[in-house]
Amino acid sequence: MKQQATRRIADAERVLIISHVSPDGDAIGSLLGLGLALYPRKASVVLACADLVPEQYRHLPHWDWIVQAPQGEFDLVISLDCSDLQRLGSAYDVAAYADLPLLNIDHHATNVFFGTVNWVEPTAAATAQMLVSLLRALDIPFTVEIATCLLHGIITDTLGFRTPNTTPEIMEVAVELTRAGAPFVELADRAFRHRPLGTIRMWAMALQRMQLEGRIVWSEITQQMRQSTGYVEEGDAGLVNFLGTADAADIAVVFSELDGGQVDVSMRASPKYDVSEVALSLGGGGHPQAAGCTLPGPLTAVRGRVLSLLEQAWRAQT
Amino acid sequence: MKQQATRRIADAERVLIISHVSPDGDAIGSLLGLGLALYPRKASVVLACADLVPEQYRHLPHWDWIVQAPQGEFDLVISLDCSDLQRLGSAYDVAAYADLPLLNIDHHATNVFFGTVNWVEPTAAATAQMLVSLLRALDIPFTVEIATCLLHGIITDTLGFRTPNTTPEIMEVAVELTRAGAPFVELADRAFRHRPLGTIRMWAMALQRMQLEGRIVWSEITQQMRQSTGYVEEGDAGLVNFLGTADAADIAVVFSELDGGQVDVSMRASPKYDVSEVALSLGGGGHPQAAGCTLPGPLTAVRGRVLSLLEQAWRAQT
Repeated sequence: MKQQATRRIADAERVLIISHVSPDGDAIGSLLGLGLALYPRKASVVLACADLVPEQYRHLPHWDWIVQAPQGEFDLVISLDCSDLQRLGSAYDVAAYADLPLLNIDHHATNVFFGTVNWVEPTAAATAQMLVSLLRALDIPFTVEIATCLLHGIITDTLGFRTPNTTPEIMEVAVELTRAGAPFVELADRAFRHRPLGTIRMWAMALQRMQLEGRIVWSEITQQMRQSTGYVEEGDAGLVNFLGTADAADIAVVFSELDGGQVDVSMRASPKYDVSEVALSLGGGGHPQAAGCTLPGPLTAVRGRVLSLLEQAWRAQT
Repeated sequence: MKQQATRRIADAERVLIISHVSPDGDAIGSLLGLGLALYPRKASVVLACADLVPEQYRHLPHWDWIVQAPQGEFDLVISLDCSDLQRLGSAYDVAAYADLPLLNIDHHATNVFFGTVNWVEPTAAATAQMLVSLLRALDIPFTVEIATCLLHGIITDTLGFRTPNTTPEIMEVAVELTRAGAPFVELADRAFRHRPLGTIRMWAMALQRMQLEGRIVWSEITQQMRQSTGYVEEGDAGLVNFLGTADAADIAVVFSELDGGQVDVSMRASPKYDVSEVALSLGGGGHPQAAGCTLPGPLTAVRGRVLSLLEQAWRAQT
């Protein structure tokens, strides 16, 4: 399938590349990496994501090339890091693009093969890792900017070489991109080692509220906590990864109240457990060890519902 | 100097290898890695460390070979990861070993060249990295056990590829050791991703107490906090690394009350600052970005003294 993907890209002249809603570091890094690689080689390349590029990724080169509503004529649409068509959100205009070939490049095991060509590699730790091998096949050299964007995808999706799918292969890819000029330490530093004081204060409050129920540890970020600590971001700022380190738990969850009354649910599982199915059943997605969804509030109702589903999943998997 | 070190080791038959007091992951990993490499090739090899091997390193192969008080006759003493003779503690019997050649292998910039032969490489991110090149020079292949111990040293001393001295070279060394069978993800997981619930509860309390003074952020772990949270370890369980991520600070410090009334001081600096000189002036040691010392209590007096020295250092370096 990689060969077909390579051929489709080699043959296309006007390319639209779309990454998923609520973009993470791999979505944005992959989008920019492939975009920068194709830009000087095609008649037109448009990069799109239905949601705004999050603040913490705006250090990446040319992040402002990414549009929310793409315009123009295309002969190929490439979907990056999306497990289904819904993840493309409003950036994918079903009516306008229905007759265009859709190339689906993704590493999620939950991918539903929604494209005309589907190149899906669940063993890859990041979509950016697949793009490294794609660019090699296309004979496109790694500029510093391309290498930076792709390494960003790899570092964020492996939590900086902490996930079980961190193989010698992906480490070698990271070395190659670092030798091409990508600033490994700076990227890891930005991704994991810079926190506003308000974020640390939010952690302090959320850790005080931490609860252990059976082998599930959870906490929450309420609007009131945001106001009192000055923590304004939508996500959980890595809190769920930290809770996931608790020896006493197999599953960790953080519930975050969003502005519009919705609740963001972020879940982590230790290697023998799988939270992606619960996320999928609630309209979200992700990987066995890291998944999430967004549900209508109130917080207490979401908490009860999700914890009960997770407890069932835990029992079934134990 | 590496050549001289290699020759001394090649020529020796009865070797005593000593790592530093209050051993960290590089001290124990390097000690075991070199020990396992020389063990089948020498008449006798004794591994020593004046302090007990900390609980969190007892998953390493043959950690129980390490003795606190070495016995026997030797023709070479090797010091690993120590910047001065005091760091060897009681494991180095000055009277008994004064006439023996002392090979000093270390990567600390603060090393005072106390050996007969001094191989000191401040650009190495870990002593274990130096040992990888030493074993190559000695033509000793990397067994799974040797690779595991040395990779453990590299992972812990670079905080899992987060420190500024994480180069493509050390990443390649890590890939090589992983290919030799060292379990990269498991080692990183053990080092950074397993925490007892009591540790997380201690974090919650300590983060509530966090204070920012100028550009210095600090917190403390009191005996009372240990009792109420069930956190029993001596160290700060990574808390100072977390405080070091605060955007608002250039320097982070955690003060921990120990059992005997002493206070452990753990310091971190962002890349442009240096806390090793303050640590050194207080009888401790370390690197520019990570250093520490142990002082007689009470806590409040230590806090005042150290914060005042750090503020002076900050002013001088700003």
